[in-house]
Amino acid sequence: MLREMGRRAKEASLTLMNLDAATKSAGLVAIANALTAHTDEILAENKKDVDAFLEKGGSAAMADRLRLTKERIAAMAEGVLKVNALPEVVGEVLGMTKRPNGLVIGKKRVPLGVIGMIYEARPNVTVDAAVLCLKTSNACILRGGSEAIFSNSILTDIMTKALHSAGFPDGSLQLVRDTSRETVVNLMRLNEYLDVLIPRGGKGLIQSVVQNATVPVIETGTGNCHIYIEKTADMDMAVRILYNAKTSRPSVCNAAESLLVDRLIAKEVLPQIALSMAEKQVELRGCDKTREILPEIKTATEEDFYTEYNDYILSIKVVEDIHEAIAHINTHGTGHSEAIITSDYTSANLFLDSIDAAAVYVNASTRFTDGDEFGFGAEIGISTQKLHARGPMGLEALTSTKYIVYGNGQVRE
Amino acid sequence: MLREMGRRAKEASLTLMNLDAATKSAGLVAIANALTAHTDEILAENKKDVDAFLEKGGSAAMADRLRLTKERIAAMAEGVLKVNALPEVVGEVLGMTKRPNGLVIGKKRVPLGVIGMIYEARPNVTVDAAVLCLKTSNACILRGGSEAIFSNSILTDIMTKALHSAGFPDGSLQLVRDTSRETVVNLMRLNEYLDVLIPRGGKGLIQSVVQNATVPVIETGTGNCHIYIEKTADMDMAVRILYNAKTSRPSVCNAAESLLVDRLIAKEVLPQIALSMAEKQVELRGCDKTREILPEIKTATEEDFYTEYNDYILSIKVVEDIHEAIAHINTHGTGHSEAIITSDYTSANLFLDSIDAAAVYVNASTRFTDGDEFGFGAEIGISTQKLHARGPMGLEALTSTKYIVYGNGQVRE
Repeated sequence: MLREMGRRAKEASLTLMNLDAATKSAGLVAIANALTAHTDEILAENKKDVDAFLEKGGSAAMADRLRLTKERIAAMAEGVLKVNALPEVVGEVLGMTKRPNGLVIGKKRVPLGVIGMIYEARPNVTVDAAVLCLKTSNACILRGGSEAIFSNSILTDIMTKALHSAGFPDGSLQLVRDTSRETVVNLMRLNEYLDVLIPRGGKGLIQSVVQNATVPVIETGTGNCHIYIEKTADMDMAVRILYNAKTSRPSVCNAAESLLVDRLIAKEVLPQIALSMAEKQVELRGCDKTREILPEIKTATEEDFYTEYNDYILSIKVVEDIHEAIAHINTHGTGHSEAIITSDYTSANLFLDSIDAAAVYVNASTRFTDGDEFGFGAEIGISTQKLHARGPMGLEALTSTKYIVYGNGQVRE
Repeated sequence: MLREMGRRAKEASLTLMNLDAATKSAGLVAIANALTAHTDEILAENKKDVDAFLEKGGSAAMADRLRLTKERIAAMAEGVLKVNALPEVVGEVLGMTKRPNGLVIGKKRVPLGVIGMIYEARPNVTVDAAVLCLKTSNACILRGGSEAIFSNSILTDIMTKALHSAGFPDGSLQLVRDTSRETVVNLMRLNEYLDVLIPRGGKGLIQSVVQNATVPVIETGTGNCHIYIEKTADMDMAVRILYNAKTSRPSVCNAAESLLVDRLIAKEVLPQIALSMAEKQVELRGCDKTREILPEIKTATEEDFYTEYNDYILSIKVVEDIHEAIAHINTHGTGHSEAIITSDYTSANLFLDSIDAAAVYVNASTRFTDGDEFGFGAEIGISTQKLHARGPMGLEALTSTKYIVYGNGQVRE
């Protein structure tokens, strides 16, 4: 079954590769319109998922992530139109050179081919992921969580019909409706047909894909992000940035989890930070030196410094200097987003050069690591691996290149 | 043991990240000089490998791949100096934008970090791979074939000493001297320390890495390349290009394995091709229509059309038109290098657009798919996957990027 889906997707991808812009746009607009037109059906199917989830004892918070509303469906349709309006990235020639033998060699941006997406509960990912793949002329095979199977099925049916009416090839978009573990592992090993697999979701899901997949994977997500307050930092700025990075949305991957403070300024800045964090009831956990200044807080263990809390908790460590801060971050971080607050030129540059992460900041909140904030217009995820794409991934991350070579009879000596 | 190597490599990679150009160059020059200075020792160790190999009944052809000579060592040293002379790619900022909120975001080219290389018999890969990794400021862990263990050990020892004397951090270059299967599988799963794994060698090796690795892999190598003679082709050019693509070096991945000929010109061109291929005793295997014109040749099975012979064998198929040719190539090819011979503008462009391969040629030999021929100055392999790098990989393929973000107090709304 999966192999047949793969074969159809591969076949579709070869047609999609040269699909004209007008047809592509018509397909995306048709999806947006169809989502709006079929709002009631979508809500009815989604209700089955939510009811079943609650019946099984699912939490209200998780049920909310699963739930669609008229407004959420309208926002999904609007998102589709926004992606449709983005500039075309496929087909661009990134450079062309003429070799001494007369061969003209160009590097052309092309679709990846067939993209597999494995994700969890939120049904809006079904629409987001499909539309980003299709905008970049890729076929896609989606596999959402079992909790959202009714929602994902109706959304895929609606999108498939819309694409068909606009002239997209069959097989451009498919949903794996069998949500068994066996099938998802087979999907991860469908090398003959899949060009890439993108997992979206929690640490468990991503690790399972990394461990089981033989198809190339783009790893997304985990962020144990640090704010380092260097001794020359503007204290007000430091407190303001930490407040934003820790408390504006603690559940996301670009939120700060850990604070490093230079020893020389620890006595001055830590009490201000304790006050600011108290506004949002952030639990502080500090190293011994931190607890000399803030004796009321808990002790941070080595394990704390490796932990992405995704919650109103902050670990704090007093460091000797920037060198200790850099070494600590490169050891404990997950290579996502790291920030220094400083007014010193040399320290700023040393931090930018020495931190091994997808995004390194001077005097700004780590919360900016995001496709929209970076100006990409869309985001398929944030890569924390170094291969292919690193950091927020926009449409270009869903493309590959091929060399096109113009000759006039050249043979190799 | 492997974890300790990984830890050391990771640590070295953080220093290498900011290694100044002068030190880097000194290290590579020291390697070149040391290889020349220690020629006799290298030859003595290499002799142990070759003798053991022949004693075990190894073939003379394979022994020749394993054997080093004074000339081969001199060529290796020369190759190191050539890589050293290439322009620096690490540190380049690929673009910088200012966002409406004042954040300045740059995309900087950085090393991948720690690269694992798994390869087979030829000991010169030990030097090639090490030097390309080091030139791009990556630490590397090499794992060569057991047949070359004495050669690889002495080469690594010599290079390690040279690097140390030039001021490279310890752990920059390491060889896995335990060549057991268990250890190599553990290397493929060393996600904590390895950023990427590059296999170099035969199909079996590459498939084993793809199937077993959890570390991201760049797949290199296999090439079932086609020459398609379209009906408007210049016949002399077509015969000349096929001769070059098939016979100039049949064992390599960019050599042609299969010929497609338009039905309308098959009667005219196939006898000329049979003559030209006979010069090099190339065995021809044709479809039924080919055998109506060349009745003396063998029948090509469906299996033949999927086969990379790496030998003086050519499969031939007569096709109805360019559409059948494109469909055949996209089904049977390995996405390496594909060529059309034509004088028709529309056919040339249709072929360039529709073939899904790393390099697509008009009127030139597939043999040009090569880092040197493409002007990259060096080559770590030819990628046939679509993620990260596709086609010949030069120094840039051994790099990643990171975003560097300059703020002045920005927080996210």
